[in-house]
Amino acid sequence: MKPALLAVDWGTSSLRGALLAADGVVMEERAFPRGILTVPPHGFADVFEQCFGDWRTANPGLLCLMSGMVGSRQGWQEAPYCPCPAGFADIAGQLSWIASGPGSEAGRIAIVPGLSCARKGLEADSALASLPDVMRGEETQVFGALQTLQLQDAQDVVMLLPGTHSKWVQVKDGGITSFTTFMTGECYALLRQHSILARTLPTGDSPFDEAVFVQGVQIAVRGTSLLQTAFSVRTLALFERLPAEALESYLSGLVIGEELRAQSLNANQRVVLIANTALTQRYQLALAQCGIACDSPGAQVTWTGLSAIAQTLCP
Amino acid sequence: MKPALLAVDWGTSSLRGALLAADGVVMEERAFPRGILTVPPHGFADVFEQCFGDWRTANPGLLCLMSGMVGSRQGWQEAPYCPCPAGFADIAGQLSWIASGPGSEAGRIAIVPGLSCARKGLEADSALASLPDVMRGEETQVFGALQTLQLQDAQDVVMLLPGTHSKWVQVKDGGITSFTTFMTGECYALLRQHSILARTLPTGDSPFDEAVFVQGVQIAVRGTSLLQTAFSVRTLALFERLPAEALESYLSGLVIGEELRAQSLNANQRVVLIANTALTQRYQLALAQCGIACDSPGAQVTWTGLSAIAQTLCP
Repeated sequence: MKPALLAVDWGTSSLRGALLAADGVVMEERAFPRGILTVPPHGFADVFEQCFGDWRTANPGLLCLMSGMVGSRQGWQEAPYCPCPAGFADIAGQLSWIASGPGSEAGRIAIVPGLSCARKGLEADSALASLPDVMRGEETQVFGALQTLQLQDAQDVVMLLPGTHSKWVQVKDGGITSFTTFMTGECYALLRQHSILARTLPTGDSPFDEAVFVQGVQIAVRGTSLLQTAFSVRTLALFERLPAEALESYLSGLVIGEELRAQSLNANQRVVLIANTALTQRYQLALAQCGIACDSPGAQVTWTGLSAIAQTLCP
Repeated sequence: MKPALLAVDWGTSSLRGALLAADGVVMEERAFPRGILTVPPHGFADVFEQCFGDWRTANPGLLCLMSGMVGSRQGWQEAPYCPCPAGFADIAGQLSWIASGPGSEAGRIAIVPGLSCARKGLEADSALASLPDVMRGEETQVFGALQTLQLQDAQDVVMLLPGTHSKWVQVKDGGITSFTTFMTGECYALLRQHSILARTLPTGDSPFDEAVFVQGVQIAVRGTSLLQTAFSVRTLALFERLPAEALESYLSGLVIGEELRAQSLNANQRVVLIANTALTQRYQLALAQCGIACDSPGAQVTWTGLSAIAQTLCP
């Protein structure tokens, strides 16, 4: 069987690629610690060739689609944002083609556009009447997940893509109407590594303590701000109310709980959770505290999304 | 005129001392970059002697009162917390005397206790049914401010002591009933220096932009969580909706606004603001956005508080 697509997920800190058959089946997969932050300006073609050149030599003329921060201003080539509301056809129709690719095969490598949206800010006459938000890569995962879960026509779905910058995505009638970014993973890392709490917490990773994590979530969703709840990590340690090895799980619960507190979800809301195994476990636990169950379409949604876009080009 | 008290404010990052007359008038003042984090274990007596030895030689038997983190487990000698509710007489009556001071003058150097309080946490049968909070140094400022403003008998006052760890203090009938810590200054510094926003903001300090700061406060008090609003620093820069030199003021407004959003204040609430000049300006602006005016008793409240405690010892 010959591959029909080289699918690439090129983010800030990692680079993954897969050879996909025409029906989307994964034939081969690779990952490299070559996120865009490790690539010098004008070095993207070289890194791409180092990582995937053999696949391209073995499959002349192979189509390549890439999603993620590779399309940002700091990436290979800026792929202009597609404004919301945006459906699958909108992003598939606005691919940013690399003019001169490795091997001089122009028109065979493209970057999927990210999305932008505008949320209400201050008064209509204010300079900040609207506040922009952006994503790159998550749009491909969302459309892949909708296909995997057969939800292309679902009326109202909330998709949650947790991580360094968590995205909460509103999907209506198969399109993305709006989304909101939360700096959850990043703020956890800042508090864990650089704040006064770092002096209280053990240096290495502690085993995950599910019960304490859930208590952290409960404190956060009943609280008003992480600025306040986070200090309890220090005081509970000071008064020896939590063992040192439980503090990391407690802080994780506080930060994820803060993200959930800020949502206006009702218990009947359908939430689709797109995350790796570790984050899926934590967010399922946290969402359950809010009475919300979720579907998890699995880790292959980026490949599914890129494969679906490829099929619009070569149906 | 002979001094009646050597008053010392020994915090995490700085050490200040003053010679006070019997009526509390400041005769001489000094500051050193010798916060407790710079002092090796068992090195406190030496640092104290280096900084204030000449004053003590010139005034044999001079009483010395200290407040701040010097009384913490990492300080000179642990001064046990005084639990809330706590009045002025409670802290004045629970001084922690240094047994063997420099110059062998036992019983002339004491540390003012910090305060602890317990806030409602989870269900009564939970291990986290109550959440502790702590302060060290702010209790002395609060009682100093009550005296300065002649509010010793005021029924209901909210005191705000902003900083690395802001304290919101509830005062009733001259005593501290409870308080809450917000990691405001620390989270600002984390986002400013260590987050992805640091790549967007100019490297050096920008001049304070009052209008943009106020917009940041407005966005935050209408928002739900700093985890979300903070990302707008990045997107507003990305779309060139705010100039680079305004982003620092905007972030400052977002973080201080988040602290105010989390309070349940009514517009008639009397707030006493105890801060340095720069923070006083920012918090007055931010509180005004919530319709709240505030009194500022000035920077000498620590000396006023320590002087009042000294007067209970030698009336």
